[in-house]
Amino acid sequence: MSLPHHDGSLLYVPEDAPELGRTATVFVRVPREDGATEVHVRSTPDAEVKLSRGVVDRTTETETWWRCEVPVRNPGAHYRFLLQGGPRGYRWLTGTGLHQHEVSDAMDFRFTAAPPPPEWTRDAFVYQVFPDRFARSAAADERQVPAWAAPARWDDPVDAHGPTVATQLYGGDLDGILAHLDHIAGLGADTLYLTPFFPAESNHRYNATDFGAVDPILGGDEALARLSRAVHGRGMRLMGDLTTNHSGDTHRWFRSALADPRASERAFYYFAGPESDEYEMWLGYPSLPKFDFASAELRRRLLKGPESVAGRWLLPPFHLDGWRIDVANMTGRRATDDYNAEVARELRATLAEVGDQAALIAEHSFDASADLGGEGWQGVMDYSAFTTPVRSWLRDPGTQEHRPPGLPPLVPRLPAEAAAATIREHYARRPWRATATSWSILASHDTAHIRTIVGTREMQEVAAGLLFTMPGVPMVFAGDEIGLTGTFGEDARIPFPWNRQDTWDFQTLATYRELAALRRGSEALRHGGLRWVATSGDTLAYLREAPGERLLVLALRAPALPLRLPARGLGMLDADEAPNVFGGGAALSARGGTEVVLPGDGPTFQVWRLP
Amino acid sequence: MSLPHHDGSLLYVPEDAPELGRTATVFVRVPREDGATEVHVRSTPDAEVKLSRGVVDRTTETETWWRCEVPVRNPGAHYRFLLQGGPRGYRWLTGTGLHQHEVSDAMDFRFTAAPPPPEWTRDAFVYQVFPDRFARSAAADERQVPAWAAPARWDDPVDAHGPTVATQLYGGDLDGILAHLDHIAGLGADTLYLTPFFPAESNHRYNATDFGAVDPILGGDEALARLSRAVHGRGMRLMGDLTTNHSGDTHRWFRSALADPRASERAFYYFAGPESDEYEMWLGYPSLPKFDFASAELRRRLLKGPESVAGRWLLPPFHLDGWRIDVANMTGRRATDDYNAEVARELRATLAEVGDQAALIAEHSFDASADLGGEGWQGVMDYSAFTTPVRSWLRDPGTQEHRPPGLPPLVPRLPAEAAAATIREHYARRPWRATATSWSILASHDTAHIRTIVGTREMQEVAAGLLFTMPGVPMVFAGDEIGLTGTFGEDARIPFPWNRQDTWDFQTLATYRELAALRRGSEALRHGGLRWVATSGDTLAYLREAPGERLLVLALRAPALPLRLPARGLGMLDADEAPNVFGGGAALSARGGTEVVLPGDGPTFQVWRLP
Repeated sequence: MSLPHHDGSLLYVPEDAPELGRTATVFVRVPREDGATEVHVRSTPDAEVKLSRGVVDRTTETETWWRCEVPVRNPGAHYRFLLQGGPRGYRWLTGTGLHQHEVSDAMDFRFTAAPPPPEWTRDAFVYQVFPDRFARSAAADERQVPAWAAPARWDDPVDAHGPTVATQLYGGDLDGILAHLDHIAGLGADTLYLTPFFPAESNHRYNATDFGAVDPILGGDEALARLSRAVHGRGMRLMGDLTTNHSGDTHRWFRSALADPRASERAFYYFAGPESDEYEMWLGYPSLPKFDFASAELRRRLLKGPESVAGRWLLPPFHLDGWRIDVANMTGRRATDDYNAEVARELRATLAEVGDQAALIAEHSFDASADLGGEGWQGVMDYSAFTTPVRSWLRDPGTQEHRPPGLPPLVPRLPAEAAAATIREHYARRPWRATATSWSILASHDTAHIRTIVGTREMQEVAAGLLFTMPGVPMVFAGDEIGLTGTFGEDARIPFPWNRQDTWDFQTLATYRELAALRRGSEALRHGGLRWVATSGDTLAYLREAPGERLLVLALRAPALPLRLPARGLGMLDADEAPNVFGGGAALSARGGTEVVLPGDGPTFQVWRLP
Repeated sequence: MSLPHHDGSLLYVPEDAPELGRTATVFVRVPREDGATEVHVRSTPDAEVKLSRGVVDRTTETETWWRCEVPVRNPGAHYRFLLQGGPRGYRWLTGTGLHQHEVSDAMDFRFTAAPPPPEWTRDAFVYQVFPDRFARSAAADERQVPAWAAPARWDDPVDAHGPTVATQLYGGDLDGILAHLDHIAGLGADTLYLTPFFPAESNHRYNATDFGAVDPILGGDEALARLSRAVHGRGMRLMGDLTTNHSGDTHRWFRSALADPRASERAFYYFAGPESDEYEMWLGYPSLPKFDFASAELRRRLLKGPESVAGRWLLPPFHLDGWRIDVANMTGRRATDDYNAEVARELRATLAEVGDQAALIAEHSFDASADLGGEGWQGVMDYSAFTTPVRSWLRDPGTQEHRPPGLPPLVPRLPAEAAAATIREHYARRPWRATATSWSILASHDTAHIRTIVGTREMQEVAAGLLFTMPGVPMVFAGDEIGLTGTFGEDARIPFPWNRQDTWDFQTLATYRELAALRRGSEALRHGGLRWVATSGDTLAYLREAPGERLLVLALRAPALPLRLPARGLGMLDADEAPNVFGGGAALSARGGTEVVLPGDGPTFQVWRLP
């Protein structure tokens, strides 16, 4: 707050997607006490260093706003600021803050001249449903249970270990989801995202047998059409889940490839040789043969145009509003092959051609910066910049969360410094727009439920507070909002207890509703920049600021010393009051115009609207 | 020194260029007091996170060496270490050190599976000659001065400003250089690098009129053949300088293109339209039309095979040992065009096909990491990781160095912390091999002389000390070794004062000779890793370590408190002594086995050989 600041939000980069060949105007705000007397912006048009001198655009009582012009000469243009003068002397401002050495370009601010994603994808609140476990319609009772499945009753415990992990079938279906849209819409979600609905010999359906139909156990194509009509009838959106990395080994393409070495589908996969039965799999699972995008025919069938898998489900009567892409990070990548950017671009082109403002979100569990900012993926499931740092900060030291063998160890409970450093570093590495479009996630079908990780309702409120007030699109895994538990992916795929409302945590549900409403009504939360105010130990505080609105957010994971902030630093003058808009705290007032004191009773989550 | 350490040198990565598809063994050393109980290596084969547990390879009295296996699955594979246990807890070790948050991949250690550069390119000591200003043979007197030139006599002052900057011609020639090979070899240099020798209407010759001949003013093709024979006769190497970004506007290709819109050379350049006379230039200089590598014919003539420009000069009788590529960073890059990696790969292929262990070094003035590690450029002129931090640390506060308008401001005098942070960050961003092959530069034909920047002989000794003992290949700009001065590029292109030896600083010359000999005889300096020992204010100290040799280096830019180091941290036991091998200081001894004290009298540069 007392440091010079820039990010990619509207206050600092008024133009969302400056055209290539143009010059973009960018702003940097410098607190008076910083004392900078000169500001340059450094960029590298055509890969040569260019420094352009900034000018003072305006001054306020507390700040100087410098205006700089940056050439947007190349795709992926990046820039940083050089500040000179004042007690801090010569220093660079990058996405990770101020540096007094000659930094590399790694943390430069980034432009993207690629076409922006549809507006709604940055405003959304996404609700994730794992169809087998959400709700079961009456029709489900009449369906034949397939031979591979181990049928379960809705109240049976989940088989989180052993041979039935992937075959235990509860029989949730699409009409079941349709019957509970009131719940989803009532929460404030406007986008329903379904994990795969294709036929597959598993409850998760990530090993598709066929990309051309909806699994009959889910109700078939008609059920999806019905669900789509109902969802869109409410003004909501519907997203699907597509595996571009692999199909199931029961898929007809793979069956053809295996049966006949001369089949055209043979080239869709990586076989060890022309006659070989050995093939590349996802992480060694024989059920998941990996796609080889050297095949133009595979691209035609899977990615390109209205007849492709990616395209046809966007059309009536299904009318999906986009795809979440499974294992997007690995898609098209094997040894020296790297078709990832091509696959993403082709998907994006199909969405633009066939879809109605369709979204494209990549599953990616680590540093996705190399895959963002181009003309492909619009955003990622933001494990790296949201899930990991937030979970690590809020983790119950006695947490029950665990990882199945083979996965990286859990990040332990770390102080706020670590969480903020992680968030800042990952934000720095990609265009702001990619962060704003990415999905913030506290839990998913691949993780423990957030209640299990943080331990208590109070701590879950802090977590949910961050979910709805940090940059990025909130995604809620069904059941989090009523306090469901579960210690890891499979274990947390608990059938939604519609018939056991005595087990629901209605207070948590009310918190989620309130936070969703706060976000929906707030320009600053949906489109604003982020300035850190405090990042220490048990305290995270930040400002979300848009041209017309400023919010101050306080998250405490434990009781802490009350935070004393300089009133002017917050832009508050003598008589100003800042009403509390979430968390029930008192309004803030600038005591004699010098200091604002935030409460120290934690855990708590509070939001104030600044003047 | 008291921190866990890894870098890409032999101690830690025994295999220089592990093959794709293999697993590479890497080591990380952990001081006992760190207390780590678990070490993992994290990599991302096919873009999925993989953590592999390390094992203890061996323990010494002071350290534990952990051994880890990293899959080298993809080109550009990267990795980092996760350390757990001990007082510091959970932490990542990357190229920029230890971090207690979830870092991005930006500073990961990097492999390269690309073919390694020839051995000699990492062992070399390069001497840079700007032919017009080095030496003039008797034959020069008989040559016709071309019409564009403003002839000067050897003792005339350099026109560093005004219209004759590029046309003032002293008439240095290749036979002049040949006559002074004793001086170059006597310094210890084993590689002679000439700035361009092609005909051009300027003294710098970066605006070539023809790539097919040696400038007659330099003595023509025969003179180059003579020089090459003499250089190779001494067991030395000879490198040329090629502009792949542009030609001169007097070049016959450009003349054809301009004269006839249907000429095949038309496509070699970026014209504004089919009939237009407007064209893309280097930084707006009309004399430097930029190449468009969309033209396959341009690639054929300039880059590919023995008949190309890049190829033919490698053949007898010229037999160049490689190219320094001018403006390599901008080559092939314009707006949405980016042929840079292709140009580099094609050059490299030609060098491999035509040359005898030929070198390919890119001019690059900033973060070159995106261009290194592939199958193109072997290294860069290392302004970012050497020149800038070293100059900034050693800068005379009253320095006379200045920059012509339009260039970035000079980095001011900064403390050792800043220099070390800059070096560390830039090393982190590229494979170690690229750093070891890149040219460390104190001065070049494009900069002030180092004596002018640092102010005194004593300070130049510190600078030269760093030049010969840091990772990277030392390149000396002719005249630095006798203490020539000059405040910026053109101003510093002073004719070598062969006839005015009274102006030579022979003491500096002796220092350069001694340092070159030290490096030549030292495995640690040529191939060793780098561990920082002290990086504070006026003090830089570091270890250079190879399997068979360890050196301790101390650089002081001013008097400082004597550095007290734990003897065991240096691997010195009770009775051990470390003889001084440069700088004249006393041998180091481990006083009672606990402490080693380094001298504080600065400025100074000292090197000790550790047991």
